[in-house]
Amino acid sequence: MSSNVFLDQLDAHTLRDRLENEKLALIIPVGSLEQHGPHLPLGTDAMLSTKVAAGVAEKLGALVAPAFAYGYKSQQKSGGGNHLVGTTSLSAATVIAQTKDLVTSYLKQGFQQIIFLNGHYENYQFLYEGMDLALESFNKEQLGDRYTLLLSYWDYVGEETLAQVYPNGFPGWDIEHGGVLETALMLHLSPHSVDMSRAPGGPAAVLPKFDRLPVVAARTPQSGCLSAPDGATAEKGKLLYDDAVSAIAADLALELADAAVAV
Amino acid sequence: MSSNVFLDQLDAHTLRDRLENEKLALIIPVGSLEQHGPHLPLGTDAMLSTKVAAGVAEKLGALVAPAFAYGYKSQQKSGGGNHLVGTTSLSAATVIAQTKDLVTSYLKQGFQQIIFLNGHYENYQFLYEGMDLALESFNKEQLGDRYTLLLSYWDYVGEETLAQVYPNGFPGWDIEHGGVLETALMLHLSPHSVDMSRAPGGPAAVLPKFDRLPVVAARTPQSGCLSAPDGATAEKGKLLYDDAVSAIAADLALELADAAVAV
Amino acid sequence: MSSNVFLDQLDAHTLRDRLENEKLALIIPVGSLEQHGPHLPLGTDAMLSTKVAAGVAEKLGALVAPAFAYGYKSQQKSGGGNHLVGTTSLSAATVIAQTKDLVTSYLKQGFQQIIFLNGHYENYQFLYEGMDLALESFNKEQLGDRYTLLLSYWDYVGEETLAQVYPNGFPGWDIEHGGVLETALMLHLSPHSVDMSRAPGGPAAVLPKFDRLPVVAARTPQSGCLSAPDGATAEKGKLLYDDAVSAIAADLALELADAAVAV
Amino acid sequence: MSSNVFLDQLDAHTLRDRLENEKLALIIPVGSLEQHGPHLPLGTDAMLSTKVAAGVAEKLGALVAPAFAYGYKSQQKSGGGNHLVGTTSLSAATVIAQTKDLVTSYLKQGFQQIIFLNGHYENYQFLYEGMDLALESFNKEQLGDRYTLLLSYWDYVGEETLAQVYPNGFPGWDIEHGGVLETALMLHLSPHSVDMSRAPGGPAAVLPKFDRLPVVAARTPQSGCLSAPDGATAEKGKLLYDDAVSAIAADLALELADAAVAV
Amino acid sequence: MSSNVFLDQLDAHTLRDRLENEKLALIIPVGSLEQHGPHLPLGTDAMLSTKVAAGVAEKLGALVAPAFAYGYKSQQKSGGGNHLVGTTSLSAATVIAQTKDLVTSYLKQGFQQIIFLNGHYENYQFLYEGMDLALESFNKEQLGDRYTLLLSYWDYVGEETLAQVYPNGFPGWDIEHGGVLETALMLHLSPHSVDMSRAPGGPAAVLPKFDRLPVVAARTPQSGCLSAPDGATAEKGKLLYDDAVSAIAADLALELADAAVAV
Amino acid sequence: MSSNVFLDQLDAHTLRDRLENEKLALIIPVGSLEQHGPHLPLGTDAMLSTKVAAGVAEKLGALVAPAFAYGYKSQQKSGGGNHLVGTTSLSAATVIAQTKDLVTSYLKQGFQQIIFLNGHYENYQFLYEGMDLALESFNKEQLGDRYTLLLSYWDYVGEETLAQVYPNGFPGWDIEHGGVLETALMLHLSPHSVDMSRAPGGPAAVLPKFDRLPVVAARTPQSGCLSAPDGATAEKGKLLYDDAVSAIAADLALELADAAVAV
Repeated sequence: MSSNVFLDQLDAHTLRDRLENEKLALIIPVGSLEQHGPHLPLGTDAMLSTKVAAGVAEKLGALVAPAFAYGYKSQQKSGGGNHLVGTTSLSAATVIAQTKDLVTSYLKQGFQQIIFLNGHYENYQFLYEGMDLALESFNKEQLGDRYTLLLSYWDYVGEETLAQVYPNGFPGWDIEHGGVLETALMLHLSPHSVDMSRAPGGPAAVLPKFDRLPVVAARTPQSGCLSAPDGATAEKGKLLYDDAVSAIAADLALELADAAVAV
Repeated sequence: MSSNVFLDQLDAHTLRDRLENEKLALIIPVGSLEQHGPHLPLGTDAMLSTKVAAGVAEKLGALVAPAFAYGYKSQQKSGGGNHLVGTTSLSAATVIAQTKDLVTSYLKQGFQQIIFLNGHYENYQFLYEGMDLALESFNKEQLGDRYTLLLSYWDYVGEETLAQVYPNGFPGWDIEHGGVLETALMLHLSPHSVDMSRAPGGPAAVLPKFDRLPVVAARTPQSGCLSAPDGATAEKGKLLYDDAVSAIAADLALELADAAVAV
Repeated sequence: MSSNVFLDQLDAHTLRDRLENEKLALIIPVGSLEQHGPHLPLGTDAMLSTKVAAGVAEKLGALVAPAFAYGYKSQQKSGGGNHLVGTTSLSAATVIAQTKDLVTSYLKQGFQQIIFLNGHYENYQFLYEGMDLALESFNKEQLGDRYTLLLSYWDYVGEETLAQVYPNGFPGWDIEHGGVLETALMLHLSPHSVDMSRAPGGPAAVLPKFDRLPVVAARTPQSGCLSAPDGATAEKGKLLYDDAVSAIAADLALELADAAVAV
Repeated sequence: MSSNVFLDQLDAHTLRDRLENEKLALIIPVGSLEQHGPHLPLGTDAMLSTKVAAGVAEKLGALVAPAFAYGYKSQQKSGGGNHLVGTTSLSAATVIAQTKDLVTSYLKQGFQQIIFLNGHYENYQFLYEGMDLALESFNKEQLGDRYTLLLSYWDYVGEETLAQVYPNGFPGWDIEHGGVLETALMLHLSPHSVDMSRAPGGPAAVLPKFDRLPVVAARTPQSGCLSAPDGATAEKGKLLYDDAVSAIAADLALELADAAVAV
Repeated sequence: MSSNVFLDQLDAHTLRDRLENEKLALIIPVGSLEQHGPHLPLGTDAMLSTKVAAGVAEKLGALVAPAFAYGYKSQQKSGGGNHLVGTTSLSAATVIAQTKDLVTSYLKQGFQQIIFLNGHYENYQFLYEGMDLALESFNKEQLGDRYTLLLSYWDYVGEETLAQVYPNGFPGWDIEHGGVLETALMLHLSPHSVDMSRAPGGPAAVLPKFDRLPVVAARTPQSGCLSAPDGATAEKGKLLYDDAVSAIAADLALELADAAVAV
Repeated sequence: MSSNVFLDQLDAHTLRDRLENEKLALIIPVGSLEQHGPHLPLGTDAMLSTKVAAGVAEKLGALVAPAFAYGYKSQQKSGGGNHLVGTTSLSAATVIAQTKDLVTSYLKQGFQQIIFLNGHYENYQFLYEGMDLALESFNKEQLGDRYTLLLSYWDYVGEETLAQVYPNGFPGWDIEHGGVLETALMLHLSPHSVDMSRAPGGPAAVLPKFDRLPVVAARTPQSGCLSAPDGATAEKGKLLYDDAVSAIAADLALELADAAVAV
């Protein structure tokens, strides 16, 4: 993956020229700094969303903005909980404000399509609100045909890929924290960051249907992972990555091309 | 359903006495004011969460607080979108602030277990943040063994019930807006509020995997419903209601009783 | 009082049709959850403002929005104080935000006249600010001749009615908390919610001219009422209700009709 | 009035010594920058509340903090409206934040009794909220027997004085904007700031019982005054001033001395 | 210095007439309430910025708005630190909000040029943000050629004056807190507020290159001054004052006149 | 520079072990996304502060947190202005909130010394406020001897180095935007990101002593640089880097070791 999709590597004059001559899409990867078990680094979510974003950007000729390195609070049912050491989170108001500020600025600069590519489940609704608040300050004339999109990359992994990655049946995204998906992707995209010798085993965590605060710490497995990365390989990571990147790129291209879409 | 579970019907002296003598649970129903198609009223979510809360409260000897009659913005993929007439929403900051204020006050008054029972998908994360912010202002000593819970009532509908209600297969909660679940429940709980002669038909809406803002209005079906309430009956409503109420009550009772839970 | 004035009972399609064909007024009742002595329920303010709103709406062909069930903090001099069990309040920022969000949304939907009908003294200034902030986001063109109104229902009780209700002289609204006005209205409008056998007696509370925080709890009477409901009857309640409803309806109709009002 | 009651004229070392040796009261005058008709200056409210505060402080040995020179938005029914040139206001959030910050700081420095002396009707509820929010950050131990008070100076003008100042009957505080009270006080306390040759005449304004936003500008009298200052004299100003100052000082002294007040 | 430059001494009708007939500039002095050693009053910054503003306003025919009597938190390296008794500060959000509200209101009233004249180092960035936020709510058409300026008065003291005031070399503005500049200016402008017999001596404070929080209190000199006012005289104060006032007035006049400035 | 100082590369279990056994310092680099002329990339500030932080961390055994990739608004006098394409900024409230959230979380996790290493002038005061707000939520006991530091790396470049880098005299940091310092550092630390063939020449920009908003765009040089990078070389970059890294490391080590520092 070449580095020339990264916005922070461009100089301002080159960017200005491109914005004047192209309908540019900008992808903002959104991650977290969050415990991911003993075998994956704290920055897993930001690394993965950045890599997926770069893959998509290369296919589309889009740019990738600096990632959100910190995300909304880890919740016990999707990330083990915000009480764990290493997990370093922003409050809702901060995620919303950051999103709003950036959407406002990027829209003013002239980007056509601004895509938040989410890699940390808990962020989603706060990114949505930040996008919506930013748009409040533009009237229709100012906005023209520009718009924002929000997606989580795992929603683009297809059924077929799931079947290959999880031969015993897909257990659901809800307990995929430090599990097969993230571990396989990291093995493919950043193998030196993974230590499979420390990977936890055992059955998936069984958590209540409710969220409780303060959390009952004992409900989170000692490893911090909600399911074990048993069977995660770089090959599966490549499969997952290629599938998600292709599907996202196809969807974004379609949306950009769809002149018939009435705003 | 008798009215004596409703907090706003109690006088303050009676409440004070109960709080001094019981470990009281308080359920706060959370709804919205949102279009639900031509056959269901705008207040559907608040009505349903209030009815479910009352059913649970009766089983547990708990109280039901006044519902949130307004919720977070309707999103196109789960509620048709916030642009539709009748849909009247609060911003994230407002939902969070309201939740925080109420949790803070109810905890100070001495309630043991405060449960947000959600009936509008979009609310969830903002209720969570409000709960979390409220707890920041209590230290461990002040809080003791009191805590807050958050749940969505549909998560408690069992597989078996789903199979009965959706004989052709359950299509997923994501397009259940103004569809079989809500319509059946309303037919059971508030039949005079439903006009089945206006119920829309046709296939379920097919929406993108991303959220787009501003929304492409044409992507929401004319009816505002994401799936048709075909086959919704009061009997199915009763089935759904009884199942959800029983399961929630059982779960809350278990949590209250679980003296072994380490905080 | 028929239920067809209540917005949450309408479906979205019917509302859309009415907004396209009428200059609709919408009344938002504003209450509180606040101790009202041993004889009145915590929800008194929301119940009364809702009933008054419904009475007015029927006369005008207006709609009644879901009430604010929670209000601003109870102050010692007007409601006994925010420290009392049962009193569950919102902070100023929350009341303002809620008001702002709703005014913004209802104006966008096309309501002509949006009226906050207040039933809890402490709310007034925060509702005002919320209205004002909402209007900041509309320019003159967008707003057209639409506007918002704010009133407290007791300001519409006439001199003559006061003389009948308080034969020994009207003591002033400031100590009317759980006193004759509210008790009589509740006896008329929701008799099963009142327990006159628990009504406190004795002279009215004498409170300082200043507000002190933290409050000196002993300054609030044990009952929580600032004056006794001596002599409150359902008949007086009817008198008060009919007078307030008629006067408010007349005033709103006049304002709607006054084409000469220069904005 | 000597200047040695003014906190901003003290050096920090002297203040530190006094706080270590005395139970110091601090009065914060609260005004506005608001049109007060053609005969009174924009700063009337801040000037009057500062002068009253200084008079009280001299009697009590208290200090006077720098005044709030700007207040909450002028409302049509009490100040003519916020749309008038010269009227320069803060939003609710700003008044609240300012109040909270100052109460927090002054309490930490060790003042015993912090009194907001209000001279602009619209401020009251926002000062109250700021006080309350500040107190949230102190626990009982940190606070000890220190507290805050809030009052409006006109509430301390006695019946007898009113009878002398308004020989034809007191019309009520609500239309006292640029009227007899403020004009007489200014003639006594800052005569060079008043130009009686420009004073408006005519009957008092008759305003609706509701607040309307946006305001109907034509409802505010051309002068900006809600009642005429007919008959205002420096003598009446002295009477009003002396009465209010004495009554406030007496009340504050009593509150300071009342060791029996249970917090 | 005559008082007729002060906005709060004007009546609203006179102001309205001037705004209709002149391109009026308005200077808002910004100070603090902050310890300034044993020889200078807490209000030094507000007094000095007000006096400088008045001097400039007289030269330009501008007006002076009521000063900000409270500023952002004192920092150890520029003001000794916020922990010292007497130092009474606003948080960043409050300074920003206050600035935003006032700029918004003054621009709407029709002032052409709004200048914040800062006298407390720590305020600068927060005033800037408040100005910027206020401008967000005006579009180009509404704003026309009106604008806001922000400056600190000491930046206008010329090299030559510095050489005269500091014959042994200018030590830098960073440790000028309660030192020669402020003391000399106060001796010239408000001699009765200075007690040179209490002025501290000794070498200037040596503080780290970083800011540390919580502060190490012992790093602030006992006096609270970061450098001694040795050699400060009223004559030097006059020199400093006249130089700053002339330079600021010249700069503002040039900016007002510069028709060639493309916005 | 090895990557093992980067927190996001660590797994949570390793971090937990280190925090239990060491007094760990954590450096948070703070940058911006801001135009830096035609020869430097938009991400210059974040890259430089991250590299300096890594250098310091290696010397101290500290960790480096994910950088702030976005900073406060670019100001014309220090960065050319926030209106330029490519410059993508956060508002004050967002920078403050982000800082507050992270300090709170990192302190709770157990870091001993948290250092913000700033590389974008405009950020400083907002980082300070965020640090201060975070500390408000800890009492002395909770905090123990842990603390936060804030510094800008250029303040650690020594006189001697300046003399070598600027043989014709150091022009002052204020116009060092895209000039010799940043260009030389980038040539040393990230040469492939610099294109000296596009470097602007000419004299330094001369900007007014005030800040004006809205900015007069023509006052910013076409290049966006406030001074030319004439004579910037990788050698000078190494000199600057080594000097700053050594000086910062020495200062932090001293502060950590200084057991005599009374908090």
